Amino acid sequence: MPSAPPVRSAPSVPADDIHALTAALASGDIRCAARLITRIERVDASLVPLMQALYRHGGRAQVIGVTGPPGAGKSTLISRLVAHWRGRGQRVAVLAVDPSSPFTGGAVLGDRVRMAEHACDDGVFIRSMASRDHLGGLARAAGDALVVLEAMPWDVVLVETVGVGQNETEIMRHASAVVLVQTPMGGDDVQAAKAGITEIGDLFVVNKADHPQADATVRHLQDMISLAQRLHPERSWQPPVLKTLALQGQGVSELAATIDHCFAHWAAHPDDARRRGSARLRHRVGEVLRELLDRRLRTGSELAIDPMLPALLARETDPYAAAAQLLDRLGG
Amino acid sequence: MPSAPPVRSAPSVPADDIHALTAALASGDIRCAARLITRIERVDASLVPLMQALYRHGGRAQVIGVTGPPGAGKSTLISRLVAHWRGRGQRVAVLAVDPSSPFTGGAVLGDRVRMAEHACDDGVFIRSMASRDHLGGLARAAGDALVVLEAMPWDVVLVETVGVGQNETEIMRHASAVVLVQTPMGGDDVQAAKAGITEIGDLFVVNKADHPQADATVRHLQDMISLAQRLHPERSWQPPVLKTLALQGQGVSELAATIDHCFAHWAAHPDDARRRGSARLRHRVGEVLRELLDRRLRTGSELAIDPMLPALLARETDPYAAAAQLLDRLGG
Repeated sequence: MPSAPPVRSAPSVPADDIHALTAALASGDIRCAARLITRIERVDASLVPLMQALYRHGGRAQVIGVTGPPGAGKSTLISRLVAHWRGRGQRVAVLAVDPSSPFTGGAVLGDRVRMAEHACDDGVFIRSMASRDHLGGLARAAGDALVVLEAMPWDVVLVETVGVGQNETEIMRHASAVVLVQTPMGGDDVQAAKAGITEIGDLFVVNKADHPQADATVRHLQDMISLAQRLHPERSWQPPVLKTLALQGQGVSELAATIDHCFAHWAAHPDDARRRGSARLRHRVGEVLRELLDRRLRTGSELAIDPMLPALLARETDPYAAAAQLLDRLGG
Repeated sequence: MPSAPPVRSAPSVPADDIHALTAALASGDIRCAARLITRIERVDASLVPLMQALYRHGGRAQVIGVTGPPGAGKSTLISRLVAHWRGRGQRVAVLAVDPSSPFTGGAVLGDRVRMAEHACDDGVFIRSMASRDHLGGLARAAGDALVVLEAMPWDVVLVETVGVGQNETEIMRHASAVVLVQTPMGGDDVQAAKAGITEIGDLFVVNKADHPQADATVRHLQDMISLAQRLHPERSWQPPVLKTLALQGQGVSELAATIDHCFAHWAAHPDDARRRGSARLRHRVGEVLRELLDRRLRTGSELAIDPMLPALLARETDPYAAAAQLLDRLGG
């Protein structure tokens, strides 16, 4: 029954510390970032004022999401992309978000080994993140970790998720551009996957492109993208489909160039970029709100619904109707 | 990425079915109740209109919560209470909520075996409930299951939770009276447990009362209750502390009489009962709201925060401040 205090009454990070931590992150202090992300994983409500200050220092890095089913070769591809960007002198942070429990983290450990070539490069920061909290909480925590990374002098911040479920989709909403990595697969599998992927992917990659079904998979994806574009004529960016052989490094520089092209496109289409940025923010605010509401309910704080109480107590109305009425106050 | 549609657009239970199901439950149809609780466990949003109708038919049964640490003897005590009430001709439903995963359910299976004496009695309904959803979702689901049970002709509805954590506390908020079962323990353990238990317990039971530390535990609990009463002078009910030996059936009829006394007290103190009922409803509405917000975010629906967007996009304000502002609209 002991529980975290509500945000407003939490003993917060002192103002002096906020200045010092903001300055440390702005100078690229990796250990400071790592410690903060650990506190974020533990759901430390006292960090909120710091997160607020850091948010205002962000917005310069390209935040790129990479997602796709397990075994698609995401981590190998990311390692190759990191090497490519480092070759251009860019500084890169990678946040790998694994919603599965620490006990099933074997595959992730393997992925991290593949990243080991960057371990001694202080222009690269690689961090895994998990959470014992519920999955919506992990998406919120990943958003907070990205606020920390965005307040640092990285040129690129990559966020990787394992799998393509609801929670990965929520995490991908934090990225400005999302790379969706697929492996060659039969048409039925592509059909089954299609419902959501064209909603979140800005670039599609068919990895392991030497597979006999690679070209068929590319065509399937292109068909799905064309359909999605017809349904969303307001979208000025037509997601391209690329082929890579990440293990051999083939197609990686083309992918990096296409990512550049994508960001250049948004710069040239500010209205569209603004629409996308607004959608990200609406979702982010909702995510933080969900966390605040969750914390309020767990600490036993109640909502002020007194005008509805007589009808509720008399069972002339019901909690479902009352909750829907409150939700309406939040708009949307 | 496939996800449940938002409540408002979900294909709902047809009105004819709502009438038929409401009538079936009102006549005590146990199989109908069991099927509905299974759908509730699976988070079936189409049930909302049915739940709304059922809520309006509830409010007659005594809803009694029973909680306490694992091994305290809750299930044995409940089985004895059920036998006691059945002896008086009362009809009893028991909802056992286990937030742990199905894979750790060994202890629960054992408990269910102890309940087996009631298996052939159609005046008793015993149902376990779990959820693969996050824990806040389980509390909401337990609330919905209680709405189903309350729409049936039970005299007593017991809800049991295993353990005494945040989530059990949330589930106990659905009950009109909460029995907190303890085992004899050292003073330090009582101190450690005290933060929350006096907030939720209306009756305290020290089970296994033949233990040498039983009387000391009773005194510790009485001290904690006295302290809590001084902090909350508005509470007219002074929680009693009883001793039981559930395995031998000792103290069970005294416990049942004290529960009767508790409900008689609320009937004689309508203002206090109303205050408690209002607190339960505020929490329940918040719980349903959290679920609606969760579902909205998972389906990609966004909040209308357009007046805040320019400042958010310019990073002059931040999502934490915006979310706090939205939370303020919910009052409390």
